[in-house]
Amino acid sequence: MSRVVLRDLAIVVTVDADDSVLHDVSIVVEDGVITAIGTGGAEFEPCDDDVVIDGRSRLALPGLVNLHTHLPMTLLRGIAEGVDLQGFLARVWAAEGAVMDPETVELGATLGTLESLLGGCTTQLDMYFHHEAAHRGAVAAGARHVGGPTFFDGPGPDGLSWDERIAGLRAWPEVLHATGGPEVPVAAMPHATYTNSVEHLSEVASVLREVAPTGILHTHVSENSAENDDVANRFGATPTQLLNRAGWFPTSPADGQRIVFGHGIHLGPQDIGVIEGRHVAVAHCPASNLKLTSGALDWTRWRAHGIRLGIGTDGCASSNDLDMWQAMRQAAHLAALTSGRPDIPATEILRAATIEGARALGMDHLIGSLEVGKRADIVLLDLDQPHLTPVHDVPALLVHAAGRGDVSDVLVDGRIVVSERRSTQVDTPELLARSRARARDAAAAATAVQEDR
Amino acid sequence: MSRVVLRDLAIVVTVDADDSVLHDVSIVVEDGVITAIGTGGAEFEPCDDDVVIDGRSRLALPGLVNLHTHLPMTLLRGIAEGVDLQGFLARVWAAEGAVMDPETVELGATLGTLESLLGGCTTQLDMYFHHEAAHRGAVAAGARHVGGPTFFDGPGPDGLSWDERIAGLRAWPEVLHATGGPEVPVAAMPHATYTNSVEHLSEVASVLREVAPTGILHTHVSENSAENDDVANRFGATPTQLLNRAGWFPTSPADGQRIVFGHGIHLGPQDIGVIEGRHVAVAHCPASNLKLTSGALDWTRWRAHGIRLGIGTDGCASSNDLDMWQAMRQAAHLAALTSGRPDIPATEILRAATIEGARALGMDHLIGSLEVGKRADIVLLDLDQPHLTPVHDVPALLVHAAGRGDVSDVLVDGRIVVSERRSTQVDTPELLARSRARARDAAAAATAVQEDR
Ligand SMILES: [Zn+2]
Ligand SMILES: [Zn+2]
Repeated sequence: MSRVVLRDLAIVVTVDADDSVLHDVSIVVEDGVITAIGTGGAEFEPCDDDVVIDGRSRLALPGLVNLHTHLPMTLLRGIAEGVDLQGFLARVWAAEGAVMDPETVELGATLGTLESLLGGCTTQLDMYFHHEAAHRGAVAAGARHVGGPTFFDGPGPDGLSWDERIAGLRAWPEVLHATGGPEVPVAAMPHATYTNSVEHLSEVASVLREVAPTGILHTHVSENSAENDDVANRFGATPTQLLNRAGWFPTSPADGQRIVFGHGIHLGPQDIGVIEGRHVAVAHCPASNLKLTSGALDWTRWRAHGIRLGIGTDGCASSNDLDMWQAMRQAAHLAALTSGRPDIPATEILRAATIEGARALGMDHLIGSLEVGKRADIVLLDLDQPHLTPVHDVPALLVHAAGRGDVSDVLVDGRIVVSERRSTQVDTPELLARSRARARDAAAAATAVQEDR
Repeated sequence: MSRVVLRDLAIVVTVDADDSVLHDVSIVVEDGVITAIGTGGAEFEPCDDDVVIDGRSRLALPGLVNLHTHLPMTLLRGIAEGVDLQGFLARVWAAEGAVMDPETVELGATLGTLESLLGGCTTQLDMYFHHEAAHRGAVAAGARHVGGPTFFDGPGPDGLSWDERIAGLRAWPEVLHATGGPEVPVAAMPHATYTNSVEHLSEVASVLREVAPTGILHTHVSENSAENDDVANRFGATPTQLLNRAGWFPTSPADGQRIVFGHGIHLGPQDIGVIEGRHVAVAHCPASNLKLTSGALDWTRWRAHGIRLGIGTDGCASSNDLDMWQAMRQAAHLAALTSGRPDIPATEILRAATIEGARALGMDHLIGSLEVGKRADIVLLDLDQPHLTPVHDVPALLVHAAGRGDVSDVLVDGRIVVSERRSTQVDTPELLARSRARARDAAAAATAVQEDR
């Protein structure tokens, strides 16, 4: 048995049902599972083979869950500035088509995962083509990575036919298992209702149901009003109504898949009627939404309608990083702005970035809080810093003052993947050098593609 | 002569008139002044007594200018959650009255300055009572600190009479000089038009004109609509109109003082007519404005009216930190949201946080850009990090991906005040311990005051 003891933690933010915040307690992790949180008992005394981390100036919280991203696009950080969503897609797709072979996807996924983990984000719902390569890259860095096949009707940047994509989904559970890495659900990710027909959307949902009855369907929905207009013009419906036609929302909410909408800013009343009471969550990506002028999600209104909200960063080509702390603070600010209410609790935002993200993925029995019996996805922050001093309010400190630079150690599934601010899994200088070289190729190719036009 | 050579910098973001970005150059600093930027010449060869910093994985940019803050309130971080501006003031003023003696103000100012400098912010326009103590505290940490007497008509938390405040202003130039520290202008800071009468506002402006003809007037203006309503009900005018009655805007814009409005979100057309063409800048504090639901400043509209815009954090009791990177990104996002334009250049935001902040303070001949002849307020970022890799667009990297945790070294007036992420001026563990102890007193006193009511 392998044991890790996080000893005498100054603060533990459990994100349990009562939002308990504990002081001066230890956490014991055995074979990847949290087996004790407390103080005084014999189980907290380290044994010879235990890994012990001194927690006296540390705050522990559950690993953050990024509910919408495209990790390999980390290589495209800053390649499409000054454009809206549609302008963005035109530029980025050109760059992707030119350079994103499986090897580059794997490299970009490792780079993005490394950034994520160093910043305390342990789980990512990651949509990208060459999904097997992306998953390998993310698992190599140590993340709990929820990937899966993506779907475009036309020839995507990967050049696969539709049948090859469906075959990829059928094969995915086995490939996922063979790759190893922490436990994650099977997911399938059609890009959007403007790039996938209703028939194809329906096929993906039913094949997923065959291969993984409680899998995840993830797609972009109502990200900006131009998308809604485009879909309305072409199909006389909203994106959500098209998904409904495709049978994505079974009559019994107990049935079937969990569904995650990327963005979901511009859902209308008719859409809310469709998804209410179903297993649907919205991945709110405030940085990307604001930067691309997609709009401002109305947090309190969505919650009043019972829509489950998680938080995501989107990909680095639009966000321009994978900083979940930035995303939490943006989400809190936008929620205040759209509602006019200064009293939305910081805990509500913190829950969205942890347990609610986990619930959206059907993983709340495994992760999302620090409780005995859960897998040990744990982030430690170094409290000995001026900008985290003093601490009058712990949740406000996390949402409105802490940041990725404060993360000292990260455990995923009980394994220490970041130790004293460094990856234990990746040769970081080598990875950065390789990423820079490949990014130069990407920039050159993107320029050439644009000049060709 | 003392020399510092920043050698072989990977990237130099000059923020000069052309927004030049240089690669693989060195910067030479002699007796606090930038004397050379370039490569190849003999002046770039280090001599025996030079301090040399290896810049090969570093990006250099001008020190950031925080155009509105209250540094001593760093001790109150998180003490007033879930409230709007008026609720905030009620809670904070109770805490301040109870604990903010000069010694505590000095401590809080050092803590806030340490946070600022570690995050790359070298200059702060800092409004707080016990201004002499605040200035001592900030200078001790190594900042270019623009402080000055504050003014309330009633008995402020410091208990001074009006005449004592005016006497403090008359004495300020000499005290400022005697305290030492990098060159800064003389400033006077009436709190707001809802706490200072027109007569008093007028007196402050004219006494300042006597003691420092090109001094800085700084006050809170039109922060939220409740403030505007309150002032309209009591005086039948806007805050800016009251300042105009007080003679703050001389007929010739070449005359007189520079004026900095804190916030300035809810300026109306009548106000813009008053300040157009004058030496007035608005300190945009997006984090505080959003958190307190004060509103969203309309960046592009203000700029179209020729209003000079700088960026600030406000105090830690509302922001809840002093992170100018966060403020830059928020400003960029809010500008995009309020205008619907995704093409506002990142350089515009970066200029606001550097050279425009300096210009607002009449200090653009001294600081705000990296150019030969300017004082050496220089920030170095460590580029060897996943979230800063790759670099496709330098200004976008700074505004949308970099953060305070990336700051490795900071020079103020040529002096290295942060070296390899640590203060060279402050015993940080001792300061944090003392701050925590005093913050506990503050929390206890604030609770007692509230229970008394
Ligand atoms: Zn996306
Ligand atoms: Zn203020």
